[in-house]
Formats: sequence, C-alpha cells, structure tokens
Amino acid sequence: MSKDVSSARFAYDGLDRIMHERARLGVLASLTAHPNGLAFSDLKQLCDLTDGNLSRHLQVLQEAGFVSVSKGYKRNRPHTTCRLTEKGRKRFLEYVSVLEQIVRDAAMTTESENSAPNALRPRPA
Amino acid sequence: MSKDVSSARFAYDGLDRIMHERARLGVLASLTAHPNGLAFSDLKQLCDLTDGNLSRHLQVLQEAGFVSVSKGYKRNRPHTTCRLTEKGRKRFLEYVSVLEQIVRDAAMTTESENSAPNALRPRPA
Repeated sequence: MSKDVSSARFAYDGLDRIMHERARLGVLASLTAHPNGLAFSDLKQLCDLTDGNLSRHLQVLQEAGFVSVSKGYKRNRPHTTCRLTEKGRKRFLEYVSVLEQIVRDAAMTTESENSAPNALRPRPA
Repeated sequence: MSKDVSSARFAYDGLDRIMHERARLGVLASLTAHPNGLAFSDLKQLCDLTDGNLSRHLQVLQEAGFVSVSKGYKRNRPHTTCRLTEKGRKRFLEYVSVLEQIVRDAAMTTESENSAPNALRPRPA
C-alpha cells in the first residue's frame, strides 16, 4: 500500500460538524459578509429559511459560541440582531480553508483526468 | 428591504444533500482523484472509515447513481473496485462549484472586513 493511501488524505477532518450543515453554512456565510450584524428578518431572507428553522439553527450556533444574538427594540418594535463572534469568524475561516482544499483536489483531477491517477501508482483494472 | 436581501443569496441550494455528508464528500473526492477506480481497502484508508461505514456510504452513493461498485477476484481473493460514474463526476463538479462560491464569499469578506458590508446598505447598529 502506498504512503498516500495510508495517510487518510481525503478524510477532511477539519469539516466541523456544526458548520457543515447546509442552512448553518448559509447563516455563517451571511454573517461573515456582514460584520456589523444582520436583522433576524434579513438573515431569514438571505438564507431562504423559515422563522422556526432559523431560530433552531441560531440556537445551535449560539451554543457553540459562533454567533451572538441581541434582542432589543427599533421604532418601538422588537428587533433581533445576529452577529458572528470572534471565535465563530476564526473557526469559519478554518472551515472554509478545508472547502478550499476540496476545490483544489477536484480542480487538480479535472486537469489530469485522462492521465494516471494523482495519489496512487497505476494499478491494473 | 434591499434587493440583495430578498435574493436568498446565501441559500446555497446547489449543495446536494447526498454529497454534502462529510464521509461521502471524502469518498467522492477520492474517486474523482482516481479515475481508474479504487479498491475498497484503499478507499477505506484514504477516507479514514471503517468497513461498515464505507459500505453504508457506498450504498447511498450507488443508489443515487454516483458510484459503481464491481466485485471480482484478484489473486484468488475477493476484490471490490469502486468508481465514479459519469453522472457522479458531473454532479460532483457542480457541487464543488458551490463550495468555490462559498470560498469566494468568505475571501471577499475577509478583504473588506473593516469596511461597510458587501451585500447590504449600511444600517445603524
């Protein structure tokens, strides 16, 4: 067995389970793109989520310390603002660097598609 | 509400549910990197999975038509080879293009971190 095969090259351990859920990924990307925070209603639209779904995902992200939610009033109406915490920002960028690795892995293969495999020595079929 | 907020910009609909599971993502990336196919045992090592886990994930990927599994013999011992189907290759590249978008979204924000948000007009805190 070659060294490359024994190295768990494609285990992608850095894909944090909490962040890797599709809806939460959208929430984190939205908040990363809006460092000043987002209103609950805007976040809901940007991620195409229902009130209930967004609430549940925000709770998971809050419990992990990735997101902070502050409730207040704006023009006498309740107003909820969601922000990425410093921990959340740091961890999301680490997560994204693993996505970047996957994109690079796939791009490398597309280029060498009809030649010999990258990581393994050629084997008989 | 601004146009950008109503566009579900961060819904990431292209993240296929079957492919987005971490272990299956590793299996698909491994097979993309090895167009001639991989032995079950090599795939297991590359993705750091147990026999049972790999079998279960391969079944899901086979049922979706993304992977083919052929059982045969090699030096008189049972030998299983796993390959990406043409459909699997095409769909995985589509999936990866969404990951690429997420990476771009995050990179764009990192650059403009201390300036105004990208997609929304500035709001009072």
